[in-house]
Amino acid sequence: MEALGECIELRREREGATIASEDFAVWWAGGRHELEERRALENYFFNDPEFDDAVHPSCMSYKQRYEHALTKGTKFLAKLREWQRSRRAQQPKGKEEHELEGAEDSVNIKLLYDYRMLLSGPVGTALFQQSFPLRLHFSMFLPTLLSQGNAEQQRRWVGRAWRLDGIVGTYAQTELGHGSYIRGLETRADYDAEREQFVLNTPTLSAYKWWPGGLGQTANMVVVLAQLYIRGKHHGLQQFLVRIRDEQTHEPLPGIDVGDIGPKLGANGVNNGFLGFRNVRIPRDQMLMKNAQVLADGRFVQAAQPLLVYGTMVFVRVMIVRDVMFGLLQAATIATRYSLVRRQSPIEPNAPEPQILDHVTQQAKILPQIARGICYRLAADVLWAIYQRVMQQLEAAGPNNSNGGRELPELHALSCCLKAVCTEGAAEGIDVLRKACGGHGYMSSANFDSIQGLASAAFTYEGEHTVLLLQTARFLLRQHLDALKRKVLPASVTYLRNASPLSWSDNLLENVARALEISAAAQLREAWQWQQEQRQHGKHTEQQANNLSGRRLTAAATLHGHAYLARNAIKQLEQLRRNVQPALYELLQQLVELFVLHTFLRQLGAVLKWNRNGISSKQLQQLEQRYEQLLGALRPNALALVDGFDFHDRVLGSTLGCWDGRVYERLMAEARRNPLNQEAVNSSYHTHLQPLFRCKL
Amino acid sequence: MEALGECIELRREREGATIASEDFAVWWAGGRHELEERRALENYFFNDPEFDDAVHPSCMSYKQRYEHALTKGTKFLAKLREWQRSRRAQQPKGKEEHELEGAEDSVNIKLLYDYRMLLSGPVGTALFQQSFPLRLHFSMFLPTLLSQGNAEQQRRWVGRAWRLDGIVGTYAQTELGHGSYIRGLETRADYDAEREQFVLNTPTLSAYKWWPGGLGQTANMVVVLAQLYIRGKHHGLQQFLVRIRDEQTHEPLPGIDVGDIGPKLGANGVNNGFLGFRNVRIPRDQMLMKNAQVLADGRFVQAAQPLLVYGTMVFVRVMIVRDVMFGLLQAATIATRYSLVRRQSPIEPNAPEPQILDHVTQQAKILPQIARGICYRLAADVLWAIYQRVMQQLEAAGPNNSNGGRELPELHALSCCLKAVCTEGAAEGIDVLRKACGGHGYMSSANFDSIQGLASAAFTYEGEHTVLLLQTARFLLRQHLDALKRKVLPASVTYLRNASPLSWSDNLLENVARALEISAAAQLREAWQWQQEQRQHGKHTEQQANNLSGRRLTAAATLHGHAYLARNAIKQLEQLRRNVQPALYELLQQLVELFVLHTFLRQLGAVLKWNRNGISSKQLQQLEQRYEQLLGALRPNALALVDGFDFHDRVLGSTLGCWDGRVYERLMAEARRNPLNQEAVNSSYHTHLQPLFRCKL
Repeated sequence: MEALGECIELRREREGATIASEDFAVWWAGGRHELEERRALENYFFNDPEFDDAVHPSCMSYKQRYEHALTKGTKFLAKLREWQRSRRAQQPKGKEEHELEGAEDSVNIKLLYDYRMLLSGPVGTALFQQSFPLRLHFSMFLPTLLSQGNAEQQRRWVGRAWRLDGIVGTYAQTELGHGSYIRGLETRADYDAEREQFVLNTPTLSAYKWWPGGLGQTANMVVVLAQLYIRGKHHGLQQFLVRIRDEQTHEPLPGIDVGDIGPKLGANGVNNGFLGFRNVRIPRDQMLMKNAQVLADGRFVQAAQPLLVYGTMVFVRVMIVRDVMFGLLQAATIATRYSLVRRQSPIEPNAPEPQILDHVTQQAKILPQIARGICYRLAADVLWAIYQRVMQQLEAAGPNNSNGGRELPELHALSCCLKAVCTEGAAEGIDVLRKACGGHGYMSSANFDSIQGLASAAFTYEGEHTVLLLQTARFLLRQHLDALKRKVLPASVTYLRNASPLSWSDNLLENVARALEISAAAQLREAWQWQQEQRQHGKHTEQQANNLSGRRLTAAATLHGHAYLARNAIKQLEQLRRNVQPALYELLQQLVELFVLHTFLRQLGAVLKWNRNGISSKQLQQLEQRYEQLLGALRPNALALVDGFDFHDRVLGSTLGCWDGRVYERLMAEARRNPLNQEAVNSSYHTHLQPLFRCKL
Repeated sequence: MEALGECIELRREREGATIASEDFAVWWAGGRHELEERRALENYFFNDPEFDDAVHPSCMSYKQRYEHALTKGTKFLAKLREWQRSRRAQQPKGKEEHELEGAEDSVNIKLLYDYRMLLSGPVGTALFQQSFPLRLHFSMFLPTLLSQGNAEQQRRWVGRAWRLDGIVGTYAQTELGHGSYIRGLETRADYDAEREQFVLNTPTLSAYKWWPGGLGQTANMVVVLAQLYIRGKHHGLQQFLVRIRDEQTHEPLPGIDVGDIGPKLGANGVNNGFLGFRNVRIPRDQMLMKNAQVLADGRFVQAAQPLLVYGTMVFVRVMIVRDVMFGLLQAATIATRYSLVRRQSPIEPNAPEPQILDHVTQQAKILPQIARGICYRLAADVLWAIYQRVMQQLEAAGPNNSNGGRELPELHALSCCLKAVCTEGAAEGIDVLRKACGGHGYMSSANFDSIQGLASAAFTYEGEHTVLLLQTARFLLRQHLDALKRKVLPASVTYLRNASPLSWSDNLLENVARALEISAAAQLREAWQWQQEQRQHGKHTEQQANNLSGRRLTAAATLHGHAYLARNAIKQLEQLRRNVQPALYELLQQLVELFVLHTFLRQLGAVLKWNRNGISSKQLQQLEQRYEQLLGALRPNALALVDGFDFHDRVLGSTLGCWDGRVYERLMAEARRNPLNQEAVNSSYHTHLQPLFRCKL
C-alpha cells in the first residue's frame, strides 16, 4: 500500500501526549542499546522484499501454508546466520564472540536460549504469524541433545544439528492418548542385547506420537520419549534419537508412519505431526545417556535424578509468560490504535462522532489490558531472575547435590501458577480486545486470530491449565502446613503466616494486595479443611478427597496467582521509582494501580467472600471511582504508551493496528489482493449458479 | 471411516444412565412428530453422497472454500425444494399446503421464517459448518422485499426471488466506517426528477458497504440502505433495490465495485463482500416504497413510522439466542463424549486412569454448560412466544395504531439484553468446553473453531454487545423511574418495585433468584445516582453523564439479564412439572438448579456487594456444597443427556464428539486424508530444505 502518512487522529493524539514514547520504548526494551539492536535487526529483515507475502497466509490452503512457511523458514535461518556473522565481524573481539560463533564446541544452552529469543521474538513473529516448522529444531531438539546426551553423543550430533547439516529434528513426547500424565505414555523401546539395538514400537493407535512441531513433513530426526524395556523389565521413560526420514531422499524410513495432524485454531505454520513405529531399530548409542545408561549386555545404570531436566520445564513456562504477554500487548496496541481512528455514536447530540476510545465503556475494555501486559512483564522479569539464580545454584552444587535446588520447589510452583494464570488472563484479554474492535476485529487481516490462536495453544501446551493449578495447590498446601508449624516460608507465600484480618488504611494498593492475599490464604484453608473432612471416618481415600477438593484447590491456586501478580507489581513499582524519569514513573504508577484494582474487581466475589468485614460499601465505591479516574487519566497517553512498546507494523501484522492509523485503506487493500477477487466472475457461477437460475428452484 | 460400533466407555455409560435419552429427545424436539420429521430430513440429506466433502474445508484455500460452499449451496437448495415438494405430495390437502407451495403469491414472512429455520437448522449447520453464501438471500433479502416493498414491487420481485429466477440477493447496510450508529451511514441516493432515477454513490472509502453475506461473488441484486437526497434536501435512510451484476454474464455492472472482504475467524463460507457505487442509476420504482414514497416529480411522502421494521430486528435477535444456544450445546455434546472416552491421571494410585469426566474439575467445566444451554432454550422459547404475541397485536391494530405495540418496548429491551448476555455466555461456555478437551480441542477437526467462530460473530452482529446493553439500561432506567412513581411495571422488571432486602429462606433457588434481582436493581440505582451526580452543578451535560456512567449501566443491564434468565428457568421448571415424566422432571430440576447456582457463583462479586447482610458465610458454604453435589448427581446421566439433544454426527462435525466415541480413530482418519499427507515428500524439501542441508547454515 502506498504510504499516506499518519492520519490526523493519530497525529493529534501524539501531539497531545504528556509522555515521550521514545523514553518509554528505551525503558521497555531494557536500554537504548537493546532498542537500537532490535530495530536494526528488524530493518535488516523487513527491508528485504524476499520476506513479503504475495498472498495473505489466511487465504492459502493448508498445504500451501506449509510450503510457504517452510520456504520462508529456510530463508529466515540463512539470513539470520548471515546477520550473526556480520555482527561478529563488526564487534571488537571479546567475550561474546565465542557464543556467536556457533562452532560445534561452542553450541551451548545459553546460545540456544538466545536463539530461541530470535526465532520467537519480534522478527520471528512478524515473518510467521502462525509460527513455522523449523522452530522446534532449535527450541526443543537441540536443547534436549545438549541436556540429555552424553559427551560422545553431543560431539557426534550437536554441531551437525546446529548447522542443519543433514539433520532437522523435533521432540516427540505427547501421544494421541496421553498428554499431561506422561507416565501413561505407551510408545516402547525394547533392548535387543544381541544386536545392541533398541526396537521401537507403537503398540496401539493411542500410542501414536501426536503434536510435535515440524514432525509432519519437515523433521528427519526425532528425540522420542518411550518406555524402556530390557528383557521384559520396565526401566521408565527414556529418550531416543531416531532417524525417521532418509537423509538424501527425505522418504520416511521403513517402519515409520509419519504425517501432519491437520489444521488447528492457530499455529498453522507449525507442521505438527503424528508418528508411529513398527519395529524400528536404532543402535544402542542413540539412547540419550547423560542420566541413564544401557550397557551393551543390557545392564541398566541410573545416574542421580536429573534436577536440570526439571529446569528445562520451568524455563519453558517462564518463556510462555513472556510470550503471552507479548501477544496481549500486540492485541492491545492494535485495539488502541483502532479505537482512536474509529468514530462512532455521538456523545453530544449535534457534535461529530467521537473516537470510540472516548467512550468510557471502551476505555474500560482496553486500558486495563495494557496495564495487565505491563504487570505480567514485571512478573516475568522476576521469574526469569529467580530462574537464573536457581540454575546457577544448581550448577555450582553439582549434579549429585540437591542442596543447590533449595529455591527450586518455589520456582517450580511459581512458574506453574503464573503460566496458568497469565495464559488465561492474556487469552481473555486478547478476546476482550478483539471484541472491542467490533466486526473488523473479526477479520483475519486484523490478525487477532493468529494472536489469539497462539495464546490459546499456550493455555494447554507445556502443562495443561488445571493440572498446573493443582500442582501449585499441592505446593501451597505444604506451605500451609509449614505455616501452621510456624516454619519460615519462601518469599512468595510468606503471607500465609499472616493471620490478621484486613484493616483498610489510606494506602489503597496495600489494602487491595492484602485483601487478595487474605482471600488466597482463606480459600486454601477452606480447601484443605474440605479435603480433611472428606477423609474423616474413612469416607474417602486421600486421593478421592483430593479429587473432591479439586474445584476449591484450583480456586486457591488461582487466587494465589492474582495475589502474587498484584503484590509483585507494587514491589517492582517501588524499585522503578529510583530508576526512571518522573513522567514515566507517574505513568507506570497509574498502570500498576489500574492493574491492581482491575485484578481486585475481577476477583470481587472471592475478595468479598473472604473479607466480609474488612471492606465497607463506601470503600468499595471509592475504589470504583478511583478505577474510573485512572481510565480518564490514562486516556490521553494511550497512544504514546502503545507506541512505546515499539512494535513494528510487521510484528503487529494487522490492518487495524498500523502506526499510521490508515485502517480503512489497509482493510480495503488487503481485501482487494485476495485471490478470490482476481477474477470478475468466479467459475462456480457458470457451473452452478447460472444452471440454477435456468431451471429455477 | 469404517463403522466400528460404539466404544466400550460409551456403551457402559449408556447402560448406566437412569434416564432414557429418547424421552428427553422427544421433549427437546417439541414432540415425537417434530423429532421424526427432523430425523427424516437429516437422513434425506446425509445419506446422499453428493454432500460428503472429499477434503475437510479447513484444508482448503479461501477461494476453494467459497467455490465449495457455493456449489454445495446450490445443490442444497435444489434438494430442499424437492423435499418440500415430496412432502406436499404425501400430505393430505389442508391448511399447510398453500404455505409449502411457495408460489409467487404465497411467499410470506411466515414461510421465510420457516425456511430460515431449515437453512440455519441442523441440516444447514451440518452441510455448512461455516455457513454458505446463499443464506442471506432467504434470511434478509426476501424478508426485506416483503416487509418494505409495496404491493407492486412485491408482485414484480418476490416470486422471481423465491424461485432464484435470475435473482440472488443480499442486504447491504453496514459500511466500512459505520456499524451500530446507522444514522452515520454515508452511501447516498440522489433523486434525478428529470429521468425519474436515483443516482447511487459511495462518497468516501469509509462509505463502502462491508460485510453483507453473499455480496462478494454471489449476489446479483442488493437491497441497499442509503441516505436519500431530493434536490439536495436530506430525507433520511431509505432502502433501494439495485442490480449489481449482469443477469446473464454475472459481470459487475458499470459503476459497481464489488468483491469479497476476505478470511475471518469463522463463517468463512459466507462470502461477505464490499460494494461501492459510482453514479449507479436505478429507476424510481426501485426504492422500496411501503413506508415512504418519492413521487415522480420529487415530492417525498412519509407514511406512519413502521413498527414492523422494529419487529424484524427483534426477530433476528430472538433467533440469535437460539443459534448460540444450539452452538453451545453442540460444543457441550462434543466435550462430554470426549471426556468419557479420554482417560487421564489416576485418581487412586494403582487404579487405571479414569475417564476424565470423573475428575470433579472436569465436571465443573462441562456440566454447567449443558445446564446453561437448556436454560437459554427456556428463555428463547418464552421470548419467541412474546414476539409472536406482540406481532399479532401489532397486525391486529393496523399500521397506524401504535397501541398494538404495548409490549413492544419490553420485548425490544429483553431481546437486546438476552442477545447480549446469551451470546457472551455461550461464547464463553464454548471456550471453556474447547479448553476442557485439551490439545485435541484445538484441532479444526474437533470443530470447536467453526462453532466458536459463529458464536463470536453473533457477539457483534445485529447489535454490538455494549450498544445493546446500553439500550437495555435505558429501558431499565425508565422502569426505575416508573417504579419510584409506583407505576405498574412490565412483567420482566416487576422486581424493581420490590425494595425488601434478601431474607434467606429454605428455598435455595428462590434465595438465589432474589439475590440476583436485588443486585440488578441496586446496580441500576447506583448507576442512576452516579449519572445524576455527574450532572449536578452543571458539571456535565446529560450525554456526558451517560457516558461517564457507561460501565455502571452495562453492569446493571448484564445483571438484569442474569436475574431474568435465572428467574425464568425457575418459572419454566414449574410449568414442566405438570408436563413431563417424573424421571425427566428430576433431571431438569437438577439442571435448572445447577444453572441458577452457576449464575450466582459467577456473579458472586455483584451479589455480595449488593446483599452484604443477606447471605452468611455458612449459607455460602452450603450453596457451594450443593453445587458440587449437583455435579455428582448429574455425572451418571451426562451422556444420556447430551444424546438426548439428538445431534446427528454430521451436525456436530467433530472427530471428538461422535455418537460411537471413536475419537482416536477419527482424529487419525481425518489427519490422513489431509492433502498435505498425500505425498511422501513435499516439493519444498527439494527446493529449499535439501539445498540448505547442502550449503549448511
